[in-house]
Amino acid sequence: MYHHIKQLMYTVRVDQPDCRFGNMLLEQFGGANGELAAAMQYSVQGINCDDPERKDLLMDIGTEELSHLEVIGVLTRMHLKPMKNKRNEAEADPLIAVIGGGGVSLYNSAGSAWTADYLKITGELDVDLRSNIAAEARAKITYERLMDFTEDQGTLDALQFLMTREITHMKAFTAALESLGKPAFSIGKRPPTPGTVDQYFNDSTGIGDRGETDALGPWNQGGTWELVESPVLANSQTPAKPRKHAAAAAKGKS
Amino acid sequence: MYHHIKQLMYTVRVDQPDCRFGNMLLEQFGGANGELAAAMQYSVQGINCDDPERKDLLMDIGTEELSHLEVIGVLTRMHLKPMKNKRNEAEADPLIAVIGGGGVSLYNSAGSAWTADYLKITGELDVDLRSNIAAEARAKITYERLMDFTEDQGTLDALQFLMTREITHMKAFTAALESLGKPAFSIGKRPPTPGTVDQYFNDSTGIGDRGETDALGPWNQGGTWELVESPVLANSQTPAKPRKHAAAAAKGKS
Amino acid sequence: MYHHIKQLMYTVRVDQPDCRFGNMLLEQFGGANGELAAAMQYSVQGINCDDPERKDLLMDIGTEELSHLEVIGVLTRMHLKPMKNKRNEAEADPLIAVIGGGGVSLYNSAGSAWTADYLKITGELDVDLRSNIAAEARAKITYERLMDFTEDQGTLDALQFLMTREITHMKAFTAALESLGKPAFSIGKRPPTPGTVDQYFNDSTGIGDRGETDALGPWNQGGTWELVESPVLANSQTPAKPRKHAAAAAKGKS
Amino acid sequence: MYHHIKQLMYTVRVDQPDCRFGNMLLEQFGGANGELAAAMQYSVQGINCDDPERKDLLMDIGTEELSHLEVIGVLTRMHLKPMKNKRNEAEADPLIAVIGGGGVSLYNSAGSAWTADYLKITGELDVDLRSNIAAEARAKITYERLMDFTEDQGTLDALQFLMTREITHMKAFTAALESLGKPAFSIGKRPPTPGTVDQYFNDSTGIGDRGETDALGPWNQGGTWELVESPVLANSQTPAKPRKHAAAAAKGKS
Amino acid sequence: MYHHIKQLMYTVRVDQPDCRFGNMLLEQFGGANGELAAAMQYSVQGINCDDPERKDLLMDIGTEELSHLEVIGVLTRMHLKPMKNKRNEAEADPLIAVIGGGGVSLYNSAGSAWTADYLKITGELDVDLRSNIAAEARAKITYERLMDFTEDQGTLDALQFLMTREITHMKAFTAALESLGKPAFSIGKRPPTPGTVDQYFNDSTGIGDRGETDALGPWNQGGTWELVESPVLANSQTPAKPRKHAAAAAKGKS
Amino acid sequence: MYHHIKQLMYTVRVDQPDCRFGNMLLEQFGGANGELAAAMQYSVQGINCDDPERKDLLMDIGTEELSHLEVIGVLTRMHLKPMKNKRNEAEADPLIAVIGGGGVSLYNSAGSAWTADYLKITGELDVDLRSNIAAEARAKITYERLMDFTEDQGTLDALQFLMTREITHMKAFTAALESLGKPAFSIGKRPPTPGTVDQYFNDSTGIGDRGETDALGPWNQGGTWELVESPVLANSQTPAKPRKHAAAAAKGKS
Repeated sequence: MYHHIKQLMYTVRVDQPDCRFGNMLLEQFGGANGELAAAMQYSVQGINCDDPERKDLLMDIGTEELSHLEVIGVLTRMHLKPMKNKRNEAEADPLIAVIGGGGVSLYNSAGSAWTADYLKITGELDVDLRSNIAAEARAKITYERLMDFTEDQGTLDALQFLMTREITHMKAFTAALESLGKPAFSIGKRPPTPGTVDQYFNDSTGIGDRGETDALGPWNQGGTWELVESPVLANSQTPAKPRKHAAAAAKGKS
Repeated sequence: MYHHIKQLMYTVRVDQPDCRFGNMLLEQFGGANGELAAAMQYSVQGINCDDPERKDLLMDIGTEELSHLEVIGVLTRMHLKPMKNKRNEAEADPLIAVIGGGGVSLYNSAGSAWTADYLKITGELDVDLRSNIAAEARAKITYERLMDFTEDQGTLDALQFLMTREITHMKAFTAALESLGKPAFSIGKRPPTPGTVDQYFNDSTGIGDRGETDALGPWNQGGTWELVESPVLANSQTPAKPRKHAAAAAKGKS
Repeated sequence: MYHHIKQLMYTVRVDQPDCRFGNMLLEQFGGANGELAAAMQYSVQGINCDDPERKDLLMDIGTEELSHLEVIGVLTRMHLKPMKNKRNEAEADPLIAVIGGGGVSLYNSAGSAWTADYLKITGELDVDLRSNIAAEARAKITYERLMDFTEDQGTLDALQFLMTREITHMKAFTAALESLGKPAFSIGKRPPTPGTVDQYFNDSTGIGDRGETDALGPWNQGGTWELVESPVLANSQTPAKPRKHAAAAAKGKS
Repeated sequence: MYHHIKQLMYTVRVDQPDCRFGNMLLEQFGGANGELAAAMQYSVQGINCDDPERKDLLMDIGTEELSHLEVIGVLTRMHLKPMKNKRNEAEADPLIAVIGGGGVSLYNSAGSAWTADYLKITGELDVDLRSNIAAEARAKITYERLMDFTEDQGTLDALQFLMTREITHMKAFTAALESLGKPAFSIGKRPPTPGTVDQYFNDSTGIGDRGETDALGPWNQGGTWELVESPVLANSQTPAKPRKHAAAAAKGKS
Repeated sequence: MYHHIKQLMYTVRVDQPDCRFGNMLLEQFGGANGELAAAMQYSVQGINCDDPERKDLLMDIGTEELSHLEVIGVLTRMHLKPMKNKRNEAEADPLIAVIGGGGVSLYNSAGSAWTADYLKITGELDVDLRSNIAAEARAKITYERLMDFTEDQGTLDALQFLMTREITHMKAFTAALESLGKPAFSIGKRPPTPGTVDQYFNDSTGIGDRGETDALGPWNQGGTWELVESPVLANSQTPAKPRKHAAAAAKGKS
Repeated sequence: MYHHIKQLMYTVRVDQPDCRFGNMLLEQFGGANGELAAAMQYSVQGINCDDPERKDLLMDIGTEELSHLEVIGVLTRMHLKPMKNKRNEAEADPLIAVIGGGGVSLYNSAGSAWTADYLKITGELDVDLRSNIAAEARAKITYERLMDFTEDQGTLDALQFLMTREITHMKAFTAALESLGKPAFSIGKRPPTPGTVDQYFNDSTGIGDRGETDALGPWNQGGTWELVESPVLANSQTPAKPRKHAAAAAKGKS
């Protein structure tokens, strides 16, 4: 059986409790991009993984994220504690105040219960690593935004530490993916259909002062790209009994 | 206002309806890696996007995924239709049979209702593009697995087409991310803490016949990596009154 | 305080327990169109209702649905009971077998927990009555489909009784709506914009062997209707660099 | 394959961004009565529909609702944008601020993720049309209430347009239902039990200053109605050892 | 068929409506520890129960909780009513204001829809009674906290009544459990493994100024307890290439 | 910061993989009474706990349950693995087969994603301990039922070990509760209303061949109990126009 050791991570300090900021911090405790989501995504991928080396990686980082769950939990608890007895503070998060007595629970900032629907686990190692790279990027930006909303130094220190570790993990997962040596855009075993795979369909079209303009870039021109126009203009069936056009019709009315 | 044009995509053909396979196909209609999830993730990112060129990309692919939702919906409907009146077929998916009369709905193969908790939308363009690259990889492997479970040629043709397009999108999102020209591992504006960002914590340790062995790879050695051992062995507090070790204790009993 | 009296409803009889059918019956116990949904929708509307006469109606039917919850619960319990100890029967609904020991719980046939997201409660009496009419129609068709999947006479008798009552309620809610004497299509206080309200937009267009043909009917022609064609054909921006049409492109490839 | 064309709808204008109102607007983006719910309900019904004429209707309106999803999304985005960097604004919707950076996502005003549990899809055409009529009525009253909470003229214009279209759709669905020519209260194929179907059970009874009075109306008298009293008073088993009545007991104590 | 009689409970009085407090009250209407949860947990357990005497108990209290659902619903409705037309009040709970027009619905204070995932129903009578004892304790503390957040006398009276009844039920469920005469810690039929069942594993260890100290108490010493130390210190595999310890490493950086 | 050490627990052995049993095992991995639920409930309570001794207890058992999550995960993975490529096996759990490639994820046996709505966390220590005692009882009976559905010896050994530990924890939580020395039925600080707290309301009454008989027991007689009859029979308002009783009416018809 595997076992996990969570190492000493960080001693949390809060200079000034702030219930409304504590509510925001719940995003990283019980939210979609938070520490439980990270810990569970990597650990469960690790259980499923048949590659012993990258299984160790998944377990290492999964275990570290569990220790971060405690760090963010303790930090959030410090901010939410004043809620217990004060009506004014309780309004910052009535769910935490009434159900939890000011204690943390696995909710996000909107009081939605944590759900495993947040997780991306496919049992295909390279796909899972891509999901993890994206997950770390999301966690990083989430910590950054939280830091934009507080000036408490103890809190900023803890968030800076946690934010930093997300970049560490992003680097590690990227290196692990590259070390697999798979060709670019090769996923699984079944190859895509040649030709079709290189067609870019220009499906949305903007009109008017706020519409987006069709754009060209390396994502639809150059290399093997073939830019294909939407077929509607050429092929669309003549409508039954057109009277006038909605654009004109709606313009004068609404 | 933007508008979307869904182009003619594909004429679906099913040679032999198969209710239990229809149930599996629901994954790509109303499941976590399915077409609605893709369509909504990219379209909503597009609404939030301030970069007009990549906004067009997000809208183009978001719109294409909506048309794929119809393709997979029509295909799934053909497989599920026999459920309506036959008890034996109905057991393949009682929810679809009893609630839907054999019609599709936005459930996955386990009958869980589609939820926006599947989506990854941060409003940070490069982060969103990473989430999309991972999402396309997941969709690709899901289509591949579905193809492993059917031999119906019409169905295989449609799934091959849809699977191919996921690789197309993966290429486009990757090109769009690279075209932003951001430095590697640079997310948002706040830099990680130097030093700490390069430490790899060896947090999980395996023992015994099935435990994972600590591994070294480009994800924790070489370059700027510093491998750091878990502090438990050195620092852990002496326990209150240790009697014997659980490993030995449990071995003889369970 | 209001009080509810649930009357004697029905003595349930099951001639031959059938675990897989018991699983289907859960739709009307803990499912989207089931008895708890009906009971809660009407009772909560009743609590919010300021019209004393129709409040009584909502409470009467809400209370009756609660008694139906017991009827369907007892019936379902009888069908699921053999699950407790038999592996083969347990496979019909592992959740009920393992978690419930063969007892009913507020799940639907797919094991999704009952959720108040099923309910439609607006606090606008005529709107709520319309939601209730539709809810009764859905409950009726659900009972009918369940009856199509069993031949057990005791079960059929109970379902026939419950199905009948849904029509009773549909009639009562319709009469209550009509008795309000509101003009057709008048909802709330703010009138719709004249002209715009009479425009029918022909937004979807079918092409090819399976495409739907534009249709005319009393829903878009006659009376005050003005049929308006989608503006895309006339107004759409010329695409950046169209090469060829996707319809042709995709046809030969996939 | 069907294809959809979303027409040019409306150019959104916001004179004064208002984060707390933007939070409210999310109801019509990712909420229970919102545009995604409408778009998905009608489009999925359309995929399942075997009646080619009403299938076209379902696809037309489903497509129009998708375009409304964009309208309300763009409008909401304009109101929420200031949240990104301002702590005070961020408190209006911490989930949107921290997770979305001020961008919209498919949540309602309480931050609950959109779920397909909101949808009513049965695959029985006339039943689905009734669900749609009720859905349009709910959407209309929701827009009206939103209009009561803002004075921003650009916003009011957009909401008036969207609100108007709900009435249009309500008319169209009603005409489509009537055009089927089904007898009143005829749902499916199995007839209700005569006699039982005409009984109205007087199940709830009010007592005291706030209790509801039993009421008579066209929903329980006249025509074929038979008003039936709850059997409890006549039939109830004599309790084991009654001491005194709870009404009296509780009155003096609480 | 069983039938329920909800008795006259309580006439609710609100002296001063308070929308933000009304939002908090929703916890006991549609929240995790609220009256619907209690009513459903006991009633459904009652349907599954084969012991006629305790089945009567479950039905009695389940029915009483349903009447409490009305009490708390009416009380909450009175507090929320002003929301309908006032923007300022509406901000206290936008979901209730916009979707419900100021009427109650089965949400908790964070706007999460009630879910049967709150319920604990196993079909094993003594286990269910233990779940009920805990549920009543949670409901009691929830009412107490709500009372701490209001000074409205009419509201306090109602909450005191409801809070009192939870203690009543806790006593009744405890007596019913004890009356079964089961040996302590005997659940189901399969006995635990001797020896292993008496081992307490000292798995968490605290270090530093905020870490928890290993504690001894009747839960791990005395009687048959055997305190067992975590095996990590003795058995852990030597790591691949330890450089230095994370505790020291992290201390100087973050 | 606290740190957790998960000790060596158990080496899992499966003699004969069984996909349908693997599906059932998911209950204890990602289900309502499973190991993640236990681990999170106790650990989060521990974070909130101000009593250092019982905080250590909560952390010890929370940490042990995390290690059990790995044990059950590895065991379940072994049973589900054959699903990856075999259509017949895949039908045992299409979600696991198609989304997970035969790997475990945090779903229950019905494919519902794990949700924090399963957790009971109040921040009131004695209340939390009661919730934990009940949780352990549920987990024990769940393991026992799983054991009834397999004959694989390796699997039985692992389940016996895990089942045993639940009894250990039940004993520890009970001892911890008793060690607090609180008077019986004393929860929080506000006392219940004397008199009212001792009244047992006889609210449900059974009639006929399957109705429950009113029962007397230590839960409603003896000691301070006062048995109170439902007030409906004495006080109920005379109905508007009773015609005949529903019991008689329905009997002849349905």
